Amino acid sequence: MELNYDVIVIGGGHAGCEAATAAANMGAKTLLVTMDMNKIGQMSCNPAVGGIAKGQIVREIDALGGQMAKVTDATAIQFRMLNRGKGPAVWSPRAQCDRGKFIWRWRSTLDCTPNLDIWQDQADELLVENGEAVGVRTIWGVEIRAKSVIITAGTFLNGLMHIGRHKVPGGRCAEPAVAHLTESITRWGIRSARMKTGTPVRLDKRTIHFEDTERQDGEADFHQFSYMAPHRILKQLPCWTCYTNKSVHDILKADLDNSPLFNGQIQSTGPRYCPSIETKLVTFPDKDQHPLFIEPEGEDTNEMYLNGFSSSMPMETQLRALRQIPALREAKAYRPGYAIEYDYFDPTQLEHSLESKVIKGLFFAGQVNGTTGYEEAGGQGTVAGINAAIHCGGGEPFVMGRDESYIGVLIDDLTTKGVDEPYRMFTSRAEYRILLRQDDADARLTEKSYHLGLAKRDRLDWWLQKKAGIDQIINYCSTTNVKPRDINGALEALGSTPLHFACKISDLVARPQLSLKNLAEVLPELKAVLESPENRKEEIAEAAEIKMKYKGYIEREKIVADKMHRLEGIKIRGHFKYSEIQEISTEGRQKLEHIDPETLAQASRIPGVSPSDINVLLVMMGR
Amino acid sequence: MELNYDVIVIGGGHAGCEAATAAANMGAKTLLVTMDMNKIGQMSCNPAVGGIAKGQIVREIDALGGQMAKVTDATAIQFRMLNRGKGPAVWSPRAQCDRGKFIWRWRSTLDCTPNLDIWQDQADELLVENGEAVGVRTIWGVEIRAKSVIITAGTFLNGLMHIGRHKVPGGRCAEPAVAHLTESITRWGIRSARMKTGTPVRLDKRTIHFEDTERQDGEADFHQFSYMAPHRILKQLPCWTCYTNKSVHDILKADLDNSPLFNGQIQSTGPRYCPSIETKLVTFPDKDQHPLFIEPEGEDTNEMYLNGFSSSMPMETQLRALRQIPALREAKAYRPGYAIEYDYFDPTQLEHSLESKVIKGLFFAGQVNGTTGYEEAGGQGTVAGINAAIHCGGGEPFVMGRDESYIGVLIDDLTTKGVDEPYRMFTSRAEYRILLRQDDADARLTEKSYHLGLAKRDRLDWWLQKKAGIDQIINYCSTTNVKPRDINGALEALGSTPLHFACKISDLVARPQLSLKNLAEVLPELKAVLESPENRKEEIAEAAEIKMKYKGYIEREKIVADKMHRLEGIKIRGHFKYSEIQEISTEGRQKLEHIDPETLAQASRIPGVSPSDINVLLVMMGR
Repeated sequence: MELNYDVIVIGGGHAGCEAATAAANMGAKTLLVTMDMNKIGQMSCNPAVGGIAKGQIVREIDALGGQMAKVTDATAIQFRMLNRGKGPAVWSPRAQCDRGKFIWRWRSTLDCTPNLDIWQDQADELLVENGEAVGVRTIWGVEIRAKSVIITAGTFLNGLMHIGRHKVPGGRCAEPAVAHLTESITRWGIRSARMKTGTPVRLDKRTIHFEDTERQDGEADFHQFSYMAPHRILKQLPCWTCYTNKSVHDILKADLDNSPLFNGQIQSTGPRYCPSIETKLVTFPDKDQHPLFIEPEGEDTNEMYLNGFSSSMPMETQLRALRQIPALREAKAYRPGYAIEYDYFDPTQLEHSLESKVIKGLFFAGQVNGTTGYEEAGGQGTVAGINAAIHCGGGEPFVMGRDESYIGVLIDDLTTKGVDEPYRMFTSRAEYRILLRQDDADARLTEKSYHLGLAKRDRLDWWLQKKAGIDQIINYCSTTNVKPRDINGALEALGSTPLHFACKISDLVARPQLSLKNLAEVLPELKAVLESPENRKEEIAEAAEIKMKYKGYIEREKIVADKMHRLEGIKIRGHFKYSEIQEISTEGRQKLEHIDPETLAQASRIPGVSPSDINVLLVMMGR
Repeated sequence: MELNYDVIVIGGGHAGCEAATAAANMGAKTLLVTMDMNKIGQMSCNPAVGGIAKGQIVREIDALGGQMAKVTDATAIQFRMLNRGKGPAVWSPRAQCDRGKFIWRWRSTLDCTPNLDIWQDQADELLVENGEAVGVRTIWGVEIRAKSVIITAGTFLNGLMHIGRHKVPGGRCAEPAVAHLTESITRWGIRSARMKTGTPVRLDKRTIHFEDTERQDGEADFHQFSYMAPHRILKQLPCWTCYTNKSVHDILKADLDNSPLFNGQIQSTGPRYCPSIETKLVTFPDKDQHPLFIEPEGEDTNEMYLNGFSSSMPMETQLRALRQIPALREAKAYRPGYAIEYDYFDPTQLEHSLESKVIKGLFFAGQVNGTTGYEEAGGQGTVAGINAAIHCGGGEPFVMGRDESYIGVLIDDLTTKGVDEPYRMFTSRAEYRILLRQDDADARLTEKSYHLGLAKRDRLDWWLQKKAGIDQIINYCSTTNVKPRDINGALEALGSTPLHFACKISDLVARPQLSLKNLAEVLPELKAVLESPENRKEEIAEAAEIKMKYKGYIEREKIVADKMHRLEGIKIRGHFKYSEIQEISTEGRQKLEHIDPETLAQASRIPGVSPSDINVLLVMMGR
């Protein structure tokens, strides 16, 4: 550690690790301040990365040159592609990881990153001078200066854990809370509020009756998260499913008075899509059962994560209830589920760069912005890291559009709409989801990131090689005719209408029953084209096929997105005194003043700002 | 976790892990309560196991069926046998370990131990009924009952960390302190006091100028810690040495006012043989330099431990001072050194079984007894675990004599003499050190432990196989004559007096210049005897050679020890009202009453009890 840096990152979780490596890889002299070097990149809740829309974010982080995908690949113990039965717009990769190895892999990733130092200490105070963040003071009284500071403190700020009627301060089970940092930020006019999250019991594998569960294996043919060269090493393990039942529900319901969620002890809001088991019972009183997923915590541990059974009921109630499930009738827990309340900061006070509008050079990423999820945190961390590095040298902030990435959607939602409950990404939050696929994040982002300086030459070259492969396949398919006599037999066998005239291979690929793979079986020349380059043929063929199959949809969404881009191009910040525009509704005036949107497009997405309000602004811009 | 156990162990450090596995392997239903399952067996200070006298303790733990040796072997990155230039009585194995892998190896060891559950929580209160420990209440309000409770809380009880004038509560860097447990123990009449320890900065390998250090490699031919089958797997890494100098000393001395050790902030006593660098300067004002050892923290990390530079000086002073060392002129730290104060309990209130004299069924092991060192902790943990298990079933406590093990010496010293500073083991503390060698802990302890039920059949068989090998070699050597003409050439070459008459091979082995190895080179039949069993020939030959070479010393010490055993056999507890024996000195009466020794031998070792006091007791016993 030295006493002067370009960028200081406070917090070594998923946001902080991405932010620190991104800033350092951009060339900024970076310090990561973390309380515990043994918990770097700790998965505080479920030992899994990715999932619906989240998997796409991980791919985007990777395409930008971030690390989460590589760390996941190196420590995965089960891969699956969710939604494979649906359209490729919603295909979402997900991996179970070895929790302990995940930490060590992150740590050695940080260890090997040039320009990056780590300091094990606790940030106690943000240092601000003349409205700019200039550094941090730690609990050991060290003052470290920097040009940019990124806050990625997760659930640690005034963290308070709850189990039944018991409350214990702490940022995470067995870790101290951070007491003074919030106050040193809010004193400058940044608003904070409280949120809540929770985690389930951890079980001892040896005490589970797996014969009473359903086994779920990973996919053998799913490649990996990172677009870069393959490096999967761990063995693949199964997960298991079981269900709650009436007895479970009765025990929990009978003790709701002791639930801090229902007796008034916890006032703040938890993640809607990761509710506690007691919340599920109250919200869905008619449901007789809820599924639970038993997920291994690693290769060489008996610890199992009970996905779906998050709870802050009294510990004995949790254990008594789960033993009503046949598979868990003798289950022993390693630790109880618990809830935790923590401080977050209103994200509408942020620019799209994740820089504070109130304090220059101060960036926020992750749960402190009111989000939930490792992937959401990592995505924000990457953007905050990039922009904190840009801030040091001076330059245009890096902002991704809503048609460019889920991370762009996420940050635009946060800064435009704010949050009143932990924000989780879904594919439904994206209006251009056919443009935001898991297969093409590299196409969307890698060249851009290379020019920023984050993605390195090897990544660019790797992408260009893939791109050339895709182009070659598409070019071949769109210029090569196939004659009815060469293909009709296969078409009939596959249930697809036979040809009367020759047509392009690309037209055949567009048919729902057909794929490049089954066409290649009868078209040897196509097969030869698909075979090269050898080691990435599946990935490249998949990307080419999706582009051909969904060409119409993709082009249509691009047109819509381009239209919106025109509104994005109309910068309005500083042009209006909203309070004086009588033509705009009172609510619209208030919301516009509150958010102070950068562009007309952003203004149009603010809840409470109506299309007619936008028209008024458009007219005024015209003058 | 269930709500009833035979044994509860509070704390998952070196004492707690050995205690928990020992009790469980003895057949007791055991629960380990630990705050953090990711820190099980954490090496809080230097990443090394063993050393002078400590290495012998590790061997003893292994011979008893404990785990520390195996965990060390599986995670070692450098082995050395210290003192090899001296007599085998003081040979001491030592290993550098990978800190992160050490934790995970311990954790999976616990995971795989039958009868052992783990519960991640914080003990808040000892439960006592009718003068007996009956369980523990945790911060989450859970009451868990047990027949025996073992306290192995390390530095966590009211832990208070110091750096310069800053004080932060905590049990270890980044971990919370335990607040109420001490009070729930002392309220029953158990005395507690404060001790202090400290740890040095951790450095970034990339910033060290290794060209300005001396490199120190491990030994290629050192086998391993455990007596069981070999399993070394990690690569061997070097350590490095450098030295402090006058500039370093000047910077530290100039800031002594801000040293909590010298400005009155810390009142309690630290470990004499691991002093802080500032203490060394004050204690040895004439020394121009002190050696520092740069030790790797693991295989795949840049973190380096700076052995010898423990400090609680202000952080900037620590860093400024160490940069005066050429090798460290650009060194960056990952975290500062710090001091920590914590509660311990007067060990003279313990039986030799480590059970409290005040509360039945309550055992103490490790730093809470005023010791320092992982090995001292592990040794006590093993004994406490065994006796806590025995306590559940009823049976004679397991106590080792001072001539049987260093652990026996340690516990006898603790319970008889008490401590006023952290107690560290040395070979000089043992009066029978030729009987307490690193090579023969299995000979001393394994059969005994097998009959207790801790060492299992495979360990006994492994030892018996080794014993047969040793006996075979000794038997051959003591019954086989060698003629002058067969050996005199070799003797002359080795600088040893030629023979005039035939003599036994064992007589030759006793000569200082000769070894079984060099004799075997000229005596093919001996060579053949030494070769079997193949995979353990070095270990077995070494043990046989030591027994032959030092036969005289060993027999002489055995005679002395046997004499002492007679005093050990004279049980005196309950026989005397010391305060009424006018013939004994006032000091002697007070000390005897305070300690209430079990045997006349123990009485003779109490500081302040004179030989004439012992004679008075002997005479009175005679009546």
